Amino acid sequence: MSGTTDDRLPPDGAVRPRGERPVTMWDVARRANVSQSTVSFVLNESTSVRIAPATRERVLAAVRELGYRRNAMAAGLRSGTSAVIGFVTDAIATTPFAGQVILGAQDAAWDKRHLLLVVNTESAPEVERQAVAMLLEHRVRAIVYSTWYHRPVTLPAGIDEVPVMLVNCFVPDADLPAVVSDERQGGRCATEVLIERGHRRIGFLTDAETAAPATTERLEGYRDALGDAGLPFEPDLVHVVTPDQEGGYAGALALLAGAERPTALFCYNDRVAMGAYAAIGERGLSVPGDVAVMGFDDQEVIAAHLRPPLSTIALPHYEMGHRGISRLLDLLDGGAAGSGVERLPCPYIERASV
Amino acid sequence: MSGTTDDRLPPDGAVRPRGERPVTMWDVARRANVSQSTVSFVLNESTSVRIAPATRERVLAAVRELGYRRNAMAAGLRSGTSAVIGFVTDAIATTPFAGQVILGAQDAAWDKRHLLLVVNTESAPEVERQAVAMLLEHRVRAIVYSTWYHRPVTLPAGIDEVPVMLVNCFVPDADLPAVVSDERQGGRCATEVLIERGHRRIGFLTDAETAAPATTERLEGYRDALGDAGLPFEPDLVHVVTPDQEGGYAGALALLAGAERPTALFCYNDRVAMGAYAAIGERGLSVPGDVAVMGFDDQEVIAAHLRPPLSTIALPHYEMGHRGISRLLDLLDGGAAGSGVERLPCPYIERASV
Repeated sequence: MSGTTDDRLPPDGAVRPRGERPVTMWDVARRANVSQSTVSFVLNESTSVRIAPATRERVLAAVRELGYRRNAMAAGLRSGTSAVIGFVTDAIATTPFAGQVILGAQDAAWDKRHLLLVVNTESAPEVERQAVAMLLEHRVRAIVYSTWYHRPVTLPAGIDEVPVMLVNCFVPDADLPAVVSDERQGGRCATEVLIERGHRRIGFLTDAETAAPATTERLEGYRDALGDAGLPFEPDLVHVVTPDQEGGYAGALALLAGAERPTALFCYNDRVAMGAYAAIGERGLSVPGDVAVMGFDDQEVIAAHLRPPLSTIALPHYEMGHRGISRLLDLLDGGAAGSGVERLPCPYIERASV
Repeated sequence: MSGTTDDRLPPDGAVRPRGERPVTMWDVARRANVSQSTVSFVLNESTSVRIAPATRERVLAAVRELGYRRNAMAAGLRSGTSAVIGFVTDAIATTPFAGQVILGAQDAAWDKRHLLLVVNTESAPEVERQAVAMLLEHRVRAIVYSTWYHRPVTLPAGIDEVPVMLVNCFVPDADLPAVVSDERQGGRCATEVLIERGHRRIGFLTDAETAAPATTERLEGYRDALGDAGLPFEPDLVHVVTPDQEGGYAGALALLAGAERPTALFCYNDRVAMGAYAAIGERGLSVPGDVAVMGFDDQEVIAAHLRPPLSTIALPHYEMGHRGISRLLDLLDGGAAGSGVERLPCPYIERASV
């Protein structure tokens, strides 16, 4: 999307369970079918970026409809000084995948007059060590430690001189405060939606990464949903693929070649789903008429833009970042919200592929 | 690509002009067909991430073949203390687009024992102001100011108390030191490649963003190449679209419906190209047999994974970040490399669509 802000055209009909949590910029962006950056540009009345008048109107309409409090963004920083929270990550700032974690953390920090200082380490141990030492020397009040995908980690020495919150990762066999995505619920939700639409033979194109919760727990969720519906778990319907378009293409071809082909494919991620689309098309079949396709991740540059737009399960990146900082700040204020691993739901995003 | 590192399968046959610049992690990643994160995990012997043995071997082979100096990564930080450089950006850390700018900047900084502190501001003026004040208070040696796409900017007050380098942006009518991408050369290169392959009617699906160099200068490059080849500029072959898949789909349908249809489409970005693929397929035509398609950006999650893999022009994100920091550090060391706008070439990445 070089040269302009992302301005999605088709309504994506997002369906999100909504509890008591405050309305975020993420909600506004989704309602208005634009990126968070566009919402930010509109709300900040940025003059350096051209926003189409119709887009601006749509954003402001969404702000009104959802009752978004503008000052949740940066008003907290408008006057006076601010405190600093460190954000140490392996690669969130440099990969195209999980940047919304940083956005959510920023929004929560700015709302309480804290600035977020990000250090991206590419998992290099010496960089991590220096980053933590430098952040402590610069008197950060707390540190978020976060990874670009959900995985186990080992914390760098010294980090616990200040309160620490893990986001999108966890230390095995430790009860450190953490916010992660609920992969099992996500896998269950994806499968339940397909079952509700009448599917009985649901293929699952999954990954082989044994240490990743995304692999083990989404499969558990798939089995949970089948079991609840009284459907058998058929190992032949689970196909391990490389987690990209090429894997999805090959895996879908393999599953569709079976004698009794599945009528739906639950894909490990949106890239796998994109490859599955190609295989389905090549077989002369259609999505969702002949084969329903469910993705995972809700990856910004892909999911809403496939033909047909992809129904998928979103990773709560924004929410994890926001919640991680909120819990840290509660803790710093003397609250008790700081311990234990919290799992945030992965919401279903309905579009047109199931 | 949730749950695992990005492990691309097909060789992408990248063609990059190579001068005297040092071999970077980016080069290793491209040669091995993996992400930079994967290279980093392998080189750091990370135990928290499972890398397939074949992938590890491929990375190490690429390191040997290219003569990559491992200590260009983080060895500079291995002992002793480090100085700090601030990196202020609108949204690079939070969008899926330009993260490689931060990676390049990091590599250059770490190589000279500097840590990079990133503040992502979403263009909120008060956040920028506080970020700069805080970085100065924390004694950064210099500040990089960078944007997620190439555009004009206004610098926040006070930033020039230390040396400043602009990366991927510029201040109009000022001679501040900056590193940007050469959009005109990129547009020319894309068109020249298509002309060399024998195309005479080359459609251009472009964006309407009048203030963006990506829009105005790529069109200039397209016209340059046509003129050099003695081909007429035909306004009917230039079609303005929204810069995403939906725009590419509609624009390609429109151009292909003409009486004398183009045999090649130069697309404003890879997302537009992805939409063009869909339109070409729907018309019963093939890529590149009936219509050649050229992208722009080399966006990680799309370009190499389309069917056929997309030939495209890469934005030199990594190189811009690396060069920006290198120039700053030269300047801090008393060198004279600090003034003027430097344009880095956008290299052609050959795959299978032209």
